Amino acid sequence: MTPHIEKFLAEHRPQTPCLVVDLDVVEDNYHALKNALPRAEIYYAVKANPASQVLDRLAGLGSNFDVASISEVDRCLASGVDPERIAFGNTVKKQDDIATAFAQGVRLFAFDSATELEKLAVAAPGAKVFCRILVENGGAQWPLSRKFGCSARMAADLMIEARDKGLVPYGLSFHVGSQQTDPLQWQAAIGDAAMIFTTLGAAGIELGMIDLGGGFPIRYRDDVPDIQEVADTIMDGLVRSFGNRIPTVMIEPGRYLTATAGLLRTEVVLISSKDYGDDVRWVYLDVGKFGGLAETMDEAIKYPIRTLRDGDETGPVAVAGPTCDGADILYEKSGYRLPLSLKVGDQVDILNTGAYTTTYSSVGFNGFPPLKEFYL
Amino acid sequence: MTPHIEKFLAEHRPQTPCLVVDLDVVEDNYHALKNALPRAEIYYAVKANPASQVLDRLAGLGSNFDVASISEVDRCLASGVDPERIAFGNTVKKQDDIATAFAQGVRLFAFDSATELEKLAVAAPGAKVFCRILVENGGAQWPLSRKFGCSARMAADLMIEARDKGLVPYGLSFHVGSQQTDPLQWQAAIGDAAMIFTTLGAAGIELGMIDLGGGFPIRYRDDVPDIQEVADTIMDGLVRSFGNRIPTVMIEPGRYLTATAGLLRTEVVLISSKDYGDDVRWVYLDVGKFGGLAETMDEAIKYPIRTLRDGDETGPVAVAGPTCDGADILYEKSGYRLPLSLKVGDQVDILNTGAYTTTYSSVGFNGFPPLKEFYL
Repeated sequence: MTPHIEKFLAEHRPQTPCLVVDLDVVEDNYHALKNALPRAEIYYAVKANPASQVLDRLAGLGSNFDVASISEVDRCLASGVDPERIAFGNTVKKQDDIATAFAQGVRLFAFDSATELEKLAVAAPGAKVFCRILVENGGAQWPLSRKFGCSARMAADLMIEARDKGLVPYGLSFHVGSQQTDPLQWQAAIGDAAMIFTTLGAAGIELGMIDLGGGFPIRYRDDVPDIQEVADTIMDGLVRSFGNRIPTVMIEPGRYLTATAGLLRTEVVLISSKDYGDDVRWVYLDVGKFGGLAETMDEAIKYPIRTLRDGDETGPVAVAGPTCDGADILYEKSGYRLPLSLKVGDQVDILNTGAYTTTYSSVGFNGFPPLKEFYL
Repeated sequence: MTPHIEKFLAEHRPQTPCLVVDLDVVEDNYHALKNALPRAEIYYAVKANPASQVLDRLAGLGSNFDVASISEVDRCLASGVDPERIAFGNTVKKQDDIATAFAQGVRLFAFDSATELEKLAVAAPGAKVFCRILVENGGAQWPLSRKFGCSARMAADLMIEARDKGLVPYGLSFHVGSQQTDPLQWQAAIGDAAMIFTTLGAAGIELGMIDLGGGFPIRYRDDVPDIQEVADTIMDGLVRSFGNRIPTVMIEPGRYLTATAGLLRTEVVLISSKDYGDDVRWVYLDVGKFGGLAETMDEAIKYPIRTLRDGDETGPVAVAGPTCDGADILYEKSGYRLPLSLKVGDQVDILNTGAYTTTYSSVGFNGFPPLKEFYL
């Protein structure tokens, strides 16, 4: 709760649920990351929060942008971003969308397969391309699974093929998983990538870039490593693997830049017990999994929850959303506790909700409207 | 694929992804359920698909409606539904929403806690209320967990309290879980409810209604019991538990009425392998978990998938959506196979997608727009 947000909520008393984002915090986070890892060029992962106010602020700071779709390209251009500052980072793109982005001036594209490379050769001739490799996701609170990336040997072959098809084999990327709490995962992945640099060097291809992805952790309910510790571990990995020939370093932070800037104000709709003598109270809020809090899937992201009665004695709770869907439970197994004095109608704030909330919101599941958002 | 849908797709060639719903199938499903279980009054669970075309058609057939929110009340009224035909079935409601619905003429409300009952007594004086009891969800492919319902003894006490507060203690409800494949689950729940009828009879309260919820299964990829078998098992349970004093029976089908009416046309964006020699191809479609297919969570609902190349030799696949989210995988562990001849750009149809798709769609995660929908 920043003074900005506090003042806004006190003055406007917006209907709940609503997300309020303090753009100064986004700016602070940008500087903090830049200071911790000055070597890296920041490509903001637009998918984390594509609000024009966020893009405008980051564009003004000189950020670059990582986009997942053609509509995110449009959003960046609408915020005045030079297309040269945009990386089309999704490895799964329709050929028409590649062509449209290329026509708009985008010159940097990700891929992880021979078929995607063929599309790029046709629709974005001469563009710079980078291949995403598959790395471990251990330690990530929102792992990226095996959906993206290819093996090291396939990546090496594809980069040679990229050159042969008239594309510029620019670099390699990986993603260690979102909200990654083990900095050594970056070191391991950097090591994997460096070996492909060597392989390709022997084949006459000098790659110029390594993209470390995102995943920089922020503090939700539980502690995470400090960003400087993460950055130092990464720099250590870069030096170990590349010595004094460190290539251009790209990073794609999303959550790190916007999550802590946002507060989701909700209201308690119901508090109940299932039977006499049940210890656990069920607390139903007016927002849930389908109203923006999709990252509570499997209770993965554990948001801090604040009430006006914090300090009072607490008891165990299950926290659920307002829909009739049985899957719309935020927390049942994660040991959340809330004040015993909590009442229906109380405001409850869910913190660090500036990333991966608004756009996850359903268009209207159970008739509940999408999450409202305010940017200060 | 009905002739209606086939003709529409051939003539209009809409941009994918899009859902096409044949309203005649909704009507057929309504009659099939009515014929299988003539004793029951159908309350369509609007949340399954709240499109005005669906509501209009069902209203014309004389259906009643089960709503989850005040906006679903509005949708029903807009389709000309008499408010006496609406049950506000969500047990978690803001008091203001109860008051609004009551002012609009809604007279039937669900609850499962003392606190909700207090709200109803204040905001809907004299209304008929029914208490939801907690029952087992074994056999359900989309279980409703412990989120809703209270224990039998609490339900009995709350119904007495309802009377004392000037409400009409009308009946009991339960939900055996969505896409329930074991009809005996209804029998067990009916038995539980009947015992509360007896308890309350002894206290001078004659309940008039039992609400069997929804959960009536439809065939996705795998076989399910026929609706007549489910209905017969239910009737058998009603006779066993209530003899010749069977109360008014309500049911709340959602999926059963609309799922088989819908076809989701998608396009293959990419087919790739992660490494040489990998058996499993990754097939990326232009729709995924955040574009409407949320019920693939944990691979719960296994939709039938059809391609133009069906009949060709098949191989194992993982099927994923177009976003950069690692959770956006439809099927990785469920043994799906698709033709080896499948190509990028091919149309792929996902069947039985008329329920729990459009409204689950995100407002724009990764920049992808909500699912388009057409009603024929």
